[in-house]
Amino acid sequence: MVVEINSGRLWGSLMQMAEIGKTPGGGVCRLALSDEDRAGRERFIGWCEQAGLVVRIDELGNIFGRRSGTMAEAAPVLTGSHLDTQPLGGRFDGVYGVMAGLEVVRSLNDAKIETQRPIDVVVWCNEEGSRFPAGCMGSSVFAGRRDRDAMLNLRDRDGASVQGELKRIGYDGLEKCGGAPVAALFEAHIEQGPVLEREGKTIGVVTGAQGMRCYRVFVSGVEGHAGTLPMDQRFDAFQGAARMAVALDDLAHHFKHSAVITIGVVDVGPGSRSTIPGSTTFSIDCRCPDAAGLDQLDAEIRTICETIARARQLQLDIETISTIPPIKFDAGCIGAVRDAADRRGVSSRDMSSGAGHDACHLSVIAPVGMIFIPCKDGVSHNESEYASPEDVAAGCQILLDVVSDYADRP
Amino acid sequence: MVVEINSGRLWGSLMQMAEIGKTPGGGVCRLALSDEDRAGRERFIGWCEQAGLVVRIDELGNIFGRRSGTMAEAAPVLTGSHLDTQPLGGRFDGVYGVMAGLEVVRSLNDAKIETQRPIDVVVWCNEEGSRFPAGCMGSSVFAGRRDRDAMLNLRDRDGASVQGELKRIGYDGLEKCGGAPVAALFEAHIEQGPVLEREGKTIGVVTGAQGMRCYRVFVSGVEGHAGTLPMDQRFDAFQGAARMAVALDDLAHHFKHSAVITIGVVDVGPGSRSTIPGSTTFSIDCRCPDAAGLDQLDAEIRTICETIARARQLQLDIETISTIPPIKFDAGCIGAVRDAADRRGVSSRDMSSGAGHDACHLSVIAPVGMIFIPCKDGVSHNESEYASPEDVAAGCQILLDVVSDYADRP
Repeated sequence: MVVEINSGRLWGSLMQMAEIGKTPGGGVCRLALSDEDRAGRERFIGWCEQAGLVVRIDELGNIFGRRSGTMAEAAPVLTGSHLDTQPLGGRFDGVYGVMAGLEVVRSLNDAKIETQRPIDVVVWCNEEGSRFPAGCMGSSVFAGRRDRDAMLNLRDRDGASVQGELKRIGYDGLEKCGGAPVAALFEAHIEQGPVLEREGKTIGVVTGAQGMRCYRVFVSGVEGHAGTLPMDQRFDAFQGAARMAVALDDLAHHFKHSAVITIGVVDVGPGSRSTIPGSTTFSIDCRCPDAAGLDQLDAEIRTICETIARARQLQLDIETISTIPPIKFDAGCIGAVRDAADRRGVSSRDMSSGAGHDACHLSVIAPVGMIFIPCKDGVSHNESEYASPEDVAAGCQILLDVVSDYADRP
Repeated sequence: MVVEINSGRLWGSLMQMAEIGKTPGGGVCRLALSDEDRAGRERFIGWCEQAGLVVRIDELGNIFGRRSGTMAEAAPVLTGSHLDTQPLGGRFDGVYGVMAGLEVVRSLNDAKIETQRPIDVVVWCNEEGSRFPAGCMGSSVFAGRRDRDAMLNLRDRDGASVQGELKRIGYDGLEKCGGAPVAALFEAHIEQGPVLEREGKTIGVVTGAQGMRCYRVFVSGVEGHAGTLPMDQRFDAFQGAARMAVALDDLAHHFKHSAVITIGVVDVGPGSRSTIPGSTTFSIDCRCPDAAGLDQLDAEIRTICETIARARQLQLDIETISTIPPIKFDAGCIGAVRDAADRRGVSSRDMSSGAGHDACHLSVIAPVGMIFIPCKDGVSHNESEYASPEDVAAGCQILLDVVSDYADRP
């Protein structure tokens, strides 16, 4: 069974969806459960209905558009991603996976192909976590990894709750979130990194996702007058933190496993030009594809910070604020993506995902595969995010091949 | 003529003034031209009148309480400081110099000593610059170093102007600010640094004030995803800034002249835990008692930042936001303070002032001297600011000796 996708239709749908929440800078702002998110959902559901899909909404606002199979009661193959974006997001992150899933069923319809298993095109609710602070909200509850009620009670900065906003936009569905068996899930996504583009590869065969540990580091010293306190009598919290930052950067550069360390938030107190900082708080985002590597990094991060704090007589407190273990995807799904690319003559490479995705959560309850395509300059979460029509089509074609393959597996 | 001060009265006045704007933490909040500042001014003027002083207010809100001399028309000797404080200030910064000046004339009254020249006890308006952003406002206009109208039009964060607030609290005086000759000025002040305490010295003979240059440094790189961008492809603005900070700290530590460099304000953008910083802005406050040293530091600061930016392919912009040349006080006044301490058998050392003071501005139009006393742990601009009654008295005694000496010089 060789079915070809309609790449023009796919690109057209992507661009039409990008009109909803379009920003002046060419990006998209479609925050979870906003009016724009509602408009995007309605357009998606309209397309589902045109394609003959039966649409269900669950209690977390996840949307499932089902193309039935000859084994109507069989566990479905899921494919999709998310429609919500960052406040200044792009046109591809998430929406590509949803539009590619939709194109898979449209193409199967065009080819009049019936599969044995149903195929659900899924839109996971609130993947970005930028409005309501829980990334991959819908998929993580679906996979039983987060508490439904805790998520429904999450509030945005203005005090609006997930539950209230689901009701307001009409997406407080009746179906229970999760619990139903899933035969497999495949998610297509832009890489959000520069590796495929730099190596001239079209498909990233995602083998899993990096583990992550996030820390909040508190350094305190003694405030003082910038003019009157000699250098040798200072306990400057920021100078301690700056030395830690440099050492942590060097650690990541030279770590034998592939690791990344990022310090993205820095708060220096009291924040006066003429006052020696008495406190500095900073974040550490540390990722590594390998569990043992993460443990080793944890130990080295602590040693670095403690050594510098002790030498400079600063107080130190390191709080671990999240720990996500590395994830390995299903070997069968990985192999299916790799083989599909080979059969289509499309260049590919295995890679670990640097970012978290809905598929990572699903991987704990079902066999999961992901397909990455290059994005320009590795830029994502940005208005200038871009993937070429050719790569968009190539990834969708591989998705169609693996989804239809798995939908015919007993 | 040997007159002794009344140390109990001096301490009592200090503590009474500290009641006005008293904070729960034992400090003082008496922002310039606030209701608390008005209350402090009224208490001061009441004391002046009790001491027989003739009080004048100038158009910038500076207060002069004059004890007349036998040469009524002669240029006066000025002594005083300021009554305004930082938002969480202490009980000594500024107010000590005013109360010590008041004690000088009270003690001369008690001893029934007439001087040839008038003595003006002065309260300079808005020395702190924390409400209206121009430190040493009153004294700098008096010395002709700042424009009167520009200062009157300064506004606080709520939009209130200096002129409006002077009127509101009743201190928009009629007398022209500055222009009248000054025979000499002496200001007593806490050191606001740890040097005297550490060396066990009672009196700091202030020889001048450090020069200062302040910079704003903009570093920009490229934002990126903390999970997907390999370490060797990052242009992390904060990592560049952290390396600059460390190198600048090392520079100040090893600089052959006595210099201090402080990085007190750091803004990292976009400030997200999972985003590689695309921008970092930080302040540099650089001080040195020596003009050539400041020039050399300027060159080294630029070289350090440029070298690091170039190596890491970051954009750099360094903006000089203020330049204050070092100030040398009058050799006669310096010698008079040193000799007075020696005559009283009080330990002293010469030192450069790390902070700016009203006296620094006056030094461009008149012979000026300053007397520092130790403050506990070098802490100032803080509720816990403290100077002992003994040191407070010793500084005031030296002040009386030099003021009465200069008031009898022809």
